[in-house]
Amino acid sequence: MKNGWSRKVYLKLEPPAPEDNRPDSERILEAVGKLPEFSGKQLRMGISALRALYPLCPESGWEITVTLGYDGSGWEIVRAEPGDTTGYHYGLCADLGSTTIAMEAVDMRDGTVAGSVSVFNPQIRFGEDILTRIFYAKDQPERLEEIRMATVEGIRLAIEELERQTGIRAEESAALIIAGNTTMTHFLLGLDAFCVFQTPYAVHTLMPEVYRAGELDLPLEGFVYCYPGRANYLGGDIISGMIATELSEQEGISVFLDIGTNGELVIGNRDFLICGAGAAGPALEGGVVRTGMRAEPGAVDQVRITDGKPKVHVIGGGAPRGICGSGIVELLSELFLNGWMDLRGKLIPGTSGDICVEDGEAGVEYAPGLVFSERDIEEFLRTKAAAGTMVEYMMQQIGITMDDVERFYVAGAFGTHISKEAGVTIGLYPDIPRDKIVSPGNTSLTGARKMLLDIGKKDHAERLLDRMDYIQFGAVEDFVHLMGAAMAFPHTDLERYPSVQRELKRRGRAL
Amino acid sequence: MKNGWSRKVYLKLEPPAPEDNRPDSERILEAVGKLPEFSGKQLRMGISALRALYPLCPESGWEITVTLGYDGSGWEIVRAEPGDTTGYHYGLCADLGSTTIAMEAVDMRDGTVAGSVSVFNPQIRFGEDILTRIFYAKDQPERLEEIRMATVEGIRLAIEELERQTGIRAEESAALIIAGNTTMTHFLLGLDAFCVFQTPYAVHTLMPEVYRAGELDLPLEGFVYCYPGRANYLGGDIISGMIATELSEQEGISVFLDIGTNGELVIGNRDFLICGAGAAGPALEGGVVRTGMRAEPGAVDQVRITDGKPKVHVIGGGAPRGICGSGIVELLSELFLNGWMDLRGKLIPGTSGDICVEDGEAGVEYAPGLVFSERDIEEFLRTKAAAGTMVEYMMQQIGITMDDVERFYVAGAFGTHISKEAGVTIGLYPDIPRDKIVSPGNTSLTGARKMLLDIGKKDHAERLLDRMDYIQFGAVEDFVHLMGAAMAFPHTDLERYPSVQRELKRRGRAL
Repeated sequence: MKNGWSRKVYLKLEPPAPEDNRPDSERILEAVGKLPEFSGKQLRMGISALRALYPLCPESGWEITVTLGYDGSGWEIVRAEPGDTTGYHYGLCADLGSTTIAMEAVDMRDGTVAGSVSVFNPQIRFGEDILTRIFYAKDQPERLEEIRMATVEGIRLAIEELERQTGIRAEESAALIIAGNTTMTHFLLGLDAFCVFQTPYAVHTLMPEVYRAGELDLPLEGFVYCYPGRANYLGGDIISGMIATELSEQEGISVFLDIGTNGELVIGNRDFLICGAGAAGPALEGGVVRTGMRAEPGAVDQVRITDGKPKVHVIGGGAPRGICGSGIVELLSELFLNGWMDLRGKLIPGTSGDICVEDGEAGVEYAPGLVFSERDIEEFLRTKAAAGTMVEYMMQQIGITMDDVERFYVAGAFGTHISKEAGVTIGLYPDIPRDKIVSPGNTSLTGARKMLLDIGKKDHAERLLDRMDYIQFGAVEDFVHLMGAAMAFPHTDLERYPSVQRELKRRGRAL
Repeated sequence: MKNGWSRKVYLKLEPPAPEDNRPDSERILEAVGKLPEFSGKQLRMGISALRALYPLCPESGWEITVTLGYDGSGWEIVRAEPGDTTGYHYGLCADLGSTTIAMEAVDMRDGTVAGSVSVFNPQIRFGEDILTRIFYAKDQPERLEEIRMATVEGIRLAIEELERQTGIRAEESAALIIAGNTTMTHFLLGLDAFCVFQTPYAVHTLMPEVYRAGELDLPLEGFVYCYPGRANYLGGDIISGMIATELSEQEGISVFLDIGTNGELVIGNRDFLICGAGAAGPALEGGVVRTGMRAEPGAVDQVRITDGKPKVHVIGGGAPRGICGSGIVELLSELFLNGWMDLRGKLIPGTSGDICVEDGEAGVEYAPGLVFSERDIEEFLRTKAAAGTMVEYMMQQIGITMDDVERFYVAGAFGTHISKEAGVTIGLYPDIPRDKIVSPGNTSLTGARKMLLDIGKKDHAERLLDRMDYIQFGAVEDFVHLMGAAMAFPHTDLERYPSVQRELKRRGRAL
């Protein structure tokens, strides 16, 4: 891994002598500048490293290791240590999510992940959902500073946790790459994020500079770079996903869908890239559904209807307390395949003793005392219809069909945990060969890691922005019409889902 | 003044609209980048400026002024203000002396000095002379930090004093240029300065980076640059003097002599530059001479022997408390011309009732109760001999004589206050046409101002370093021999001082 944002160089220097009494700093900079890796590059000595040179240099016999960080245009020596410590060299990358901050310590020598942690984003204390936080801080600089410091605290916690778990002195890192959506990046930088949700969606920045960690109050010796974003709703986490999947470099066409708090979508290949985002998500994160919850202990994450009864799997193995996204998708798939629910999402009373009516509303008791109501189903239907319609609309725009698609990426934790089959059954995914449906995991984090290991990815990411045509779905007229057609399990046009038709036929269900 | 380290630009921006919703930061950077002044230059938005954009931009109707600072390779927007404030634009420059910190607020529009202050360097509390301070901090990081913070405090005080006197908000400046000797620069940066006085004189840095003011704990919004130095004893203050006098660009040969705590010397023109430094100074600053003192109220700064009695002028007009450098030079000149002292610096008893013997040592009571002893004279003689010998030795090395010299610069406060005639009489200055002897004042400060007004001077100064051949006088064998010959008023070889010979003859003195 020769092109990372952090470098370590071992130097065996000639000690100063009467015939060569160059200053320590210049002696070191000249030695580094002579290495092919840095020749012709901007090089400077950071103030902390400069202060550390004495007595370090004479005491180490002038055999030292310097760590260099990339500031976006040149290199700065941010640290000096005695002896050869090039065998110990870590950088940091993070996915700054609104709920969770995932961070890795990456061995800069070979790119392996040496440690991986995730902590809750302390911003949560200002609101579970992003909008609450934005309104909390809107036009209130002191509150914005509270949220900024909570974000900083989250990154501090992640660094501490990394150190605790791995013993790696993460705060010595010369580089931290962060991928987050536009709001998260705004909060990290201390910027009012109301602009993200307000027309004309001109945010404060989509292309953050490389900052000295100290400028952002981050406990790190080097530099911090946040992935640039394409638009208010299409932030650095998605650009990071582009770098992670490399879909923009491939011949085959990919669909990249990230359903989280929002739904973000990119379709393209090396020749074209179209992207957009829309409100499609909260139902999946447990925010909207009544018994919904995050994928944490107590959450139902798998559902199977066997012998006429829902059988659930609970994370952590204890009593179920609610249901998370993957549980919802399986629940709905099972309800539909077993004929308890019709394609419009209406529960059919009498098909099961677990279908009950509470406060005049039908629901299914998927676990003791836990009911998934028709209103919950409708919320979910809206979410999946919005996501599906974004994909459909965009494909119409470019004149391609699902047959032209080589990869259908479903990014994020959601994509990782959901059963592909259930996803297709309820129409969240298109009915394509299952091996084309790819769950690449946390591509925001993966892209951040790839960036960390290759400074060239900064230019790459910035060039990507220019290539991406952004569609504001809100401005699209027939979007609502298309979405209406998608408000069914799997779709009002069942012909689009032949594998679901076959399964229903196999089960003897009426189509 | 179009090439300064600080720029202000007034921007009338189009407000964001649905058809142009570029982020605020990118909108501004693009507008600045389109100006011829910044086209093709590295441009970035500083974090403080970024945070200030909202609500500043919409509230000002998108008519704003941005201030840019130069970071040594590119430009950073460090400040944003509503409306057109380009008419208010100041930068700072300072001479960081071991005794005094002189600072100016410079109008960046036309280069005029809008305010000028000087404060005592708070380092003095750790020792009157530089060596005491160096030993105080040697190998004691906490003490070094004390001295660093005292230096920072001095600059803070100067900035506050500037604001108090002129109303200029100096801390809003985007640039501060500092010229100081190697020890002062080390202390400002927080570096142990013992290296300055220890063979092989390999100091920690002679070429400081451009630092963000905050990194140095300086209360400024922009960047700080310290003049580079050529050697341990030939620091940034002298390089600044080169830029101030422009002697390195002229056809005629100049001698540049700065006698302060140390003696620093440069001889050259646009074709060659030779430099060196030596212990030649303390006697002039009042540190060594028994009744010596700084040029402050109570100090004798002028002496004339009239009607067989010394008549003195006292700074501030009160009773004399001691004598400063210019007073000493005049006193010795008068003693010599009036025959009270011979050319070896021995007082001649009987020539005046003011010559007394105290504790077995002869002295002259130049003012009531204030005695200048033969030991004081000898100290001074040593100082002036060292300075003169440096000049002489160096001229011998290049094979020139005083006749070849077009300008003899005597830099510093000392040069400004001393009478040229007295300086020549005692042999501190060579006996050349008086208009060739130039007192350019505080060239360290002047050079800092010139730098502030022209970023091109940074390269210029750095190139100068390569051009300057440094001579270690300590390593020179016949230096002691030459100095012996100079241990007389004006010199053992009186033929070199024809104008002094003439004056003695006029006064009927034996030669």
